[in-house]
Amino acid sequence: MLDDLRPRLGRRLLTGPAELAVFGCDALTAFYERPAAVVLVESADEVVAVVRACHREGVPFVARGSGTSLSGGSLPIGGGVVIALNRLDRVLSVDPDARTAVVEPGVINLDVSRAALPHGLMYCPDPSSQSVCTIGGNLAFNSGGAHCLRHGMTANHVLGIRAVLPDGELVELGGDSVEPLGPDVAGMFCGSEGLFGIALEVTVRLVAVAEATHTALAVYDSLEQAGDAVARIVAAGLLPVAMEIMDALAIEAAEASVKPNYPKGAALLIVELEGERGVVDADAAALRELLRASGAGEVVATEDPDARALIWKGRKSAFSAVGWLAPDYIVQDGVVPRTRLGEALAEIGRMGAAAGIRVANVFHAGDGNLHPLILFDGREPGMLERAEALAGDILRLCIRLGGSITGEHGVGVEKREYLPLMFTPADLELMRRLRRAVDPAELANRGKMLAVA
Amino acid sequence: MLDDLRPRLGRRLLTGPAELAVFGCDALTAFYERPAAVVLVESADEVVAVVRACHREGVPFVARGSGTSLSGGSLPIGGGVVIALNRLDRVLSVDPDARTAVVEPGVINLDVSRAALPHGLMYCPDPSSQSVCTIGGNLAFNSGGAHCLRHGMTANHVLGIRAVLPDGELVELGGDSVEPLGPDVAGMFCGSEGLFGIALEVTVRLVAVAEATHTALAVYDSLEQAGDAVARIVAAGLLPVAMEIMDALAIEAAEASVKPNYPKGAALLIVELEGERGVVDADAAALRELLRASGAGEVVATEDPDARALIWKGRKSAFSAVGWLAPDYIVQDGVVPRTRLGEALAEIGRMGAAAGIRVANVFHAGDGNLHPLILFDGREPGMLERAEALAGDILRLCIRLGGSITGEHGVGVEKREYLPLMFTPADLELMRRLRRAVDPAELANRGKMLAVA
Repeated sequence: MLDDLRPRLGRRLLTGPAELAVFGCDALTAFYERPAAVVLVESADEVVAVVRACHREGVPFVARGSGTSLSGGSLPIGGGVVIALNRLDRVLSVDPDARTAVVEPGVINLDVSRAALPHGLMYCPDPSSQSVCTIGGNLAFNSGGAHCLRHGMTANHVLGIRAVLPDGELVELGGDSVEPLGPDVAGMFCGSEGLFGIALEVTVRLVAVAEATHTALAVYDSLEQAGDAVARIVAAGLLPVAMEIMDALAIEAAEASVKPNYPKGAALLIVELEGERGVVDADAAALRELLRASGAGEVVATEDPDARALIWKGRKSAFSAVGWLAPDYIVQDGVVPRTRLGEALAEIGRMGAAAGIRVANVFHAGDGNLHPLILFDGREPGMLERAEALAGDILRLCIRLGGSITGEHGVGVEKREYLPLMFTPADLELMRRLRRAVDPAELANRGKMLAVA
Repeated sequence: MLDDLRPRLGRRLLTGPAELAVFGCDALTAFYERPAAVVLVESADEVVAVVRACHREGVPFVARGSGTSLSGGSLPIGGGVVIALNRLDRVLSVDPDARTAVVEPGVINLDVSRAALPHGLMYCPDPSSQSVCTIGGNLAFNSGGAHCLRHGMTANHVLGIRAVLPDGELVELGGDSVEPLGPDVAGMFCGSEGLFGIALEVTVRLVAVAEATHTALAVYDSLEQAGDAVARIVAAGLLPVAMEIMDALAIEAAEASVKPNYPKGAALLIVELEGERGVVDADAAALRELLRASGAGEVVATEDPDARALIWKGRKSAFSAVGWLAPDYIVQDGVVPRTRLGEALAEIGRMGAAAGIRVANVFHAGDGNLHPLILFDGREPGMLERAEALAGDILRLCIRLGGSITGEHGVGVEKREYLPLMFTPADLELMRRLRRAVDPAELANRGKMLAVA
């Protein structure tokens, strides 16, 4: 099979051990799987050709963008071919009237907004990795981000997908401007973690950049107080675009790396409002009162783009910044109902203390999406296992509280074994039936999500 | 099989010709198919028992709510069992904090909002038939309504579905408060026109009733002027919750039946704004200017609930009201890109004139969803065929302009043959593969949407 592809791909077909090494892991560093080959495709036609060759020979394949998956989503479990889409990185068109853009799967998330900005438009979903992660990966994992509280996940912003199915068939899912018709196959594709094929072109929705954006930063003496503030904001009927909480350890990490110069405290709440000038002004005044009433210490509020960018830089770099505090860490991703956030955080604190492991908390407070960062030193014997056990306990806690095992990082390799805690056998079998209908040989991203762990 | 069900269902199992007659048609009066049996179920367990019996015996079945489908969605093509869900009409719970409600599939659309109203909440999707149509049917057809312009379709408001699959298996799709995980199977179910099973319980999203609602009514000397006003409103950045246009014939029909006392003119534009008081006031002032600049004659603006209700009653009754103008009519449902609305209306006018058939136009102008009402007298020989030919030509026009063959009425029996005009063979085969994965014997709503016509 490789000999068939080599004339077409030349040096873009990698098979040497050193070349392949880097494709054996992604941002989930705990797993490593070296592929049999990597293809650096430069066109949709090449993707189709490789998928068809894989299908003919029964070889599994996995698409890869920037390798930022935190659940091992781009790992070639058991070998197979990695189809690296990074060179398919063009914004093919922006239609300011229809407020849509057509992009290739390897385009960087932030580059979509960059292309839209001259028209006063932007692409909403903003995972913390948005300056490096690609739209194809966002699509596969239905990525959210700090602003998904109001704007929704990737699925809410994808209108159409041109895709190659695992058998090499080309399909158009969804559409660019019409109302939906029939089963939402595009919706099924989005969030399916690559099990239904590879997107070749994605039509995304753009939205107008808000007239006004107001970012407030409040410090609290405890995480509970910050959580209480979120509850008050929601109860008051405000609908911020983002509500994020960082605990002392996360603040320390951010300061150590990107120096956002946050006010000091046990917990930090970031609230962002956006909309029409008058609404934002009225909401900002209400917010100020709510923050005061919830016991906030220092409150900083700004609309200055540079100051806002620094606030978000600190928040969005918090994951990698904890590398300053410990040699190793696990980023967990779980969801609890917003009403049970305080309970969840208190329990995570107790669990960390009992295990003798530091846990930094950064979370999308508005939608109950927790990101506990479990800090450890992998050189100490048994520490990795203890950290992983704690990560698992946190997930089981999320489920017990009525939540979910992943808010946005996905199942991938990492959480296959937890799926039966959330889904009944009938629910899982339905998903597997749909998957096998499209890919009976399970070639596309074999060994992930729906695979029996 | 019927003998097995009779002890359980008693007189709620209908098999007499007279009893069955009424279940042989729905709002698409052009088709008639008498079922072999009808079951008037009174619990989810009974639905499951009937589906399992049908599966065991290989008997096709179709769920039916109020029979308001305009595409024959509830007809038992080729016979089989009609499962009438009307008695499953309870709002099981309303959770004002989570802003959700759990309802049975036979609950009337408007009854969900009625149950939510004491909490200041409402259920958004508002098909014109909302006072009679059921949530199960809304789910199957991913129904929209005048206000889907801003609020979105049913799929945007359904969080979770408890369903019985065509093989009798029970599944939970989606969830009530967590972020989505994996392929969006609930999204696939929604809009699939009953091909993937029957919903037993639906968790829907509720939204806060807006602080202010402002409805403006403007008359124009031509449809083109009204269409131009819509374009101006969009270009100005206003985001009304609804923008509806009625032509002279539709106005005449409405006046003849529910007497909304609309101002006289060649075209009527209804624009509704909702939101916070200050925003609505500012937008209403801007709207007034835009309507004036677009050449509106009389403009009526009101926030009075009774006056608003009458305006909407006129609009929502327009379909049935045309019964006052002609013995028979076909309601067509097509979509064109909003930018090509003027072109589409002009062409429909020409086509109607050429065919010697009157066409009344009522449409969701904001999202390009046309509802031409084709008026004829079925007693005249050949007229039904000519009316149907015109309806088909209008659909082909929609496709040619880059639109869709249905905005919200669905494919059902009526539009099966048009699907290949919108989807490639590979796209259709993908949908069929998914369908067969769930229902290999094609028992659920056999002969609809994906069936070869």
